[in-house]
Amino acid sequence: MDILPSSLQNLIMELSKLPSIGTRSAERLSYHLMKQSDQARDPLSRAISDLTKNIVTCEICQNIAEESPCTVCKNNERDARTICVVEEPWDVIAVESTGEFKGLYHVLGGALSPIDNINPENLTINSLTRRVQSPDSKITELIIATNPSLEGEATAMYITKILRESDVRITRIAHGLPVGSDLEYADQITLGKALEGRREM
Amino acid sequence: MDILPSSLQNLIMELSKLPSIGTRSAERLSYHLMKQSDQARDPLSRAISDLTKNIVTCEICQNIAEESPCTVCKNNERDARTICVVEEPWDVIAVESTGEFKGLYHVLGGALSPIDNINPENLTINSLTRRVQSPDSKITELIIATNPSLEGEATAMYITKILRESDVRITRIAHGLPVGSDLEYADQITLGKALEGRREM
Repeated sequence: MDILPSSLQNLIMELSKLPSIGTRSAERLSYHLMKQSDQARDPLSRAISDLTKNIVTCEICQNIAEESPCTVCKNNERDARTICVVEEPWDVIAVESTGEFKGLYHVLGGALSPIDNINPENLTINSLTRRVQSPDSKITELIIATNPSLEGEATAMYITKILRESDVRITRIAHGLPVGSDLEYADQITLGKALEGRREM
Repeated sequence: MDILPSSLQNLIMELSKLPSIGTRSAERLSYHLMKQSDQARDPLSRAISDLTKNIVTCEICQNIAEESPCTVCKNNERDARTICVVEEPWDVIAVESTGEFKGLYHVLGGALSPIDNINPENLTINSLTRRVQSPDSKITELIIATNPSLEGEATAMYITKILRESDVRITRIAHGLPVGSDLEYADQITLGKALEGRREM
């Protein structure tokens, strides 16, 4: 590596610290950036340094936003009776992109994982409890849309347990075969869940 | 996407302009960077903006370097009789990492590809010709180590053709089975080349 100019080595090192970027990818990206003009590279450099300048956490849904409360929480046209509980901000985007959901969100900031030291107090579960139990709450249903992984299921169970006594309906998004997939290639757990969750036609 | 803060959208957009980074990866990377402190993000931003501050092209081998001539070209202990011709700077690193080559390099800056408008004048072939034909040249062998792709082969053929008259031996790195691979899984062209290039044991 000594052959490379140190500024290039430096960028390769910084890029390979990012998740899912190995040394090879970091090299390719660095060479690509090097071949560009300074003007073409500037916006990226600035986007990184200015990243958190206008970012806050919404005091209601705990999603990242430009102002608190965020545009979704402030929007009176959304149905304040239904809250979709997700793990991360990008899950909000995923649910929004379906166009099927008109309620509000709650972003947990992850899923329970004792092995990674992620316990209930590291997530925004307390703030969800307060939101549900607040006297002026209009919430009638919590849709738990954590990932269908071990951690996501554990988080769903935990939230169900601590909010069982409250007066809201708690539902879980359906598990089953992805649309367009093949029965033949489905794993047995998914197929089992699909049978269990069957509906009248 | 309107839900996302604009500084985050901006970074996602800038990152997804990079090769091999799609929107999903750009989102993941941006969230990762967002969760870091400003201090942790700064070195990356600075590495990008300072990238070309100390980078020049070596006037001899056309590789990127901190000074011209570069450390390899200036090194008197290297064998100035053999030149390894490669497409890109990272190929120099790859050849160096074998520890098998003690000569000098020539970086073409790509491979011939008329379909992408990459013609001989876009590569450093002229400068290679001058290097070979210069009166004080010590070069006796050119090892053409362009990629074993259509473009790499075409470039190797082109260089061979224009330098055939000069007094240097022109060789091509061997094609064959990668070490540790399985004969069974080799494609027919590679296996054909491996048979063609067989050597006495």
